[in-house]
Amino acid sequence: MNNIFLTAPNIYKLSSSSAEGLTLLNAFDVALLESGIGNTNLVKMSSILPPNCEYQDNIKLPLGSLVPVAYASIVSKKEGQKISAAVACAIPKDKTKNGLIMEYEDYDISKIEAERVVIEMAKWGMEKRDYEIGKIVSISAEHIVERNGCAFACVVLWWK
Amino acid sequence: MNNIFLTAPNIYKLSSSSAEGLTLLNAFDVALLESGIGNTNLVKMSSILPPNCEYQDNIKLPLGSLVPVAYASIVSKKEGQKISAAVACAIPKDKTKNGLIMEYEDYDISKIEAERVVIEMAKWGMEKRDYEIGKIVSISAEHIVERNGCAFACVVLWWK
Amino acid sequence: MNNIFLTAPNIYKLSSSSAEGLTLLNAFDVALLESGIGNTNLVKMSSILPPNCEYQDNIKLPLGSLVPVAYASIVSKKEGQKISAAVACAIPKDKTKNGLIMEYEDYDISKIEAERVVIEMAKWGMEKRDYEIGKIVSISAEHIVERNGCAFACVVLWWK
Repeated sequence: MNNIFLTAPNIYKLSSSSAEGLTLLNAFDVALLESGIGNTNLVKMSSILPPNCEYQDNIKLPLGSLVPVAYASIVSKKEGQKISAAVACAIPKDKTKNGLIMEYEDYDISKIEAERVVIEMAKWGMEKRDYEIGKIVSISAEHIVERNGCAFACVVLWWK
Repeated sequence: MNNIFLTAPNIYKLSSSSAEGLTLLNAFDVALLESGIGNTNLVKMSSILPPNCEYQDNIKLPLGSLVPVAYASIVSKKEGQKISAAVACAIPKDKTKNGLIMEYEDYDISKIEAERVVIEMAKWGMEKRDYEIGKIVSISAEHIVERNGCAFACVVLWWK
Repeated sequence: MNNIFLTAPNIYKLSSSSAEGLTLLNAFDVALLESGIGNTNLVKMSSILPPNCEYQDNIKLPLGSLVPVAYASIVSKKEGQKISAAVACAIPKDKTKNGLIMEYEDYDISKIEAERVVIEMAKWGMEKRDYEIGKIVSISAEHIVERNGCAFACVVLWWK
């Protein structure tokens, strides 16, 4: 059967961004635009890098297409508050195994702190699987809220 | 590659409804039934109308199929409380561009207020994209809670 | 058109588990591993068993593939707290009709209580549809929190 659900994505990319907006949802929407995925239909998933998935810096996503994505997102209306979001993707040494994506976001922490936590989470999850880590890639965003702020970080999966 | 994730949906439809249920999740389920999508598997996405997507009033959704949907939903157990949900879909003048769907829900507001807010959100997001708006379509629902209430509004995407 | 979104899943399986983790998200991840779906990309959906969907105890899910799943999940950091999650799947007598999946989770209840509630929810939803019930299958998990705990129960859908 020709079934895309049976065919795991084979390329991925990391992005992060922060934004202000008219409302919290608008701020999230602008953050998606800044991350290069704002004109697609994000389908949130939890959160595995398929085996042999290749990093590709410039993934062309058709407008309005359904895009599987793992993301960390945080919004706030509290003026002056710092918000941060981070994702980490642990890639196994053994390329026939899957990798693990972790997401973390919090109030009142820096992007460096968020990224440190999410990397620990990814390491811990790989140890739990008894998978040896080849490398970990991560990305984060930090934002100081003006009126309606959003910090966002994601791993986008796609097919080449 | 024959891949539905690469093929954006090409028809859409708006629905809204409200309901009571045995529990909050049951109320949500009945609202889905009232909106004509209660016997499918909704996959929530954020929230773009693909280019050249056509409005179709009567979309036939196979029972149990996976249906991409953008929705606003609000539930409450507080007797007498008013709850409202609304979605707006801004369609660009330039049909090669995508449209934008926004969702809004809140306690203690009317459906008219909810719809006014969500239309502003859609306008703002289109301006942010520098897209000229052709038209905006919107829909909303309002409900006075008895025991377990839900107000729901959605844009369903599908393929013709 | 060859479109997997048009082809409803035709096999399903129930699982439940509980776990501790480094963080709440890690606990959720370990619960997914214990339920046999931790190395796939879960896409949460609400919540219908397609017509003629067959129970299959051993569904082989490709690593990293996008897997439609209905689930109940609850996490807690409160040491000693009991948490429970349950799902029920009501299957109609008339096999051309769809079934209904319900999810329920709560703090400070046993898995037996959670399963009792979720079965009532599924019954109620089938009555609302005027569907005669053939049988109800259900599953649940209960956990006493140590540091970061998760209780999880799910219905996985797939294609054979």
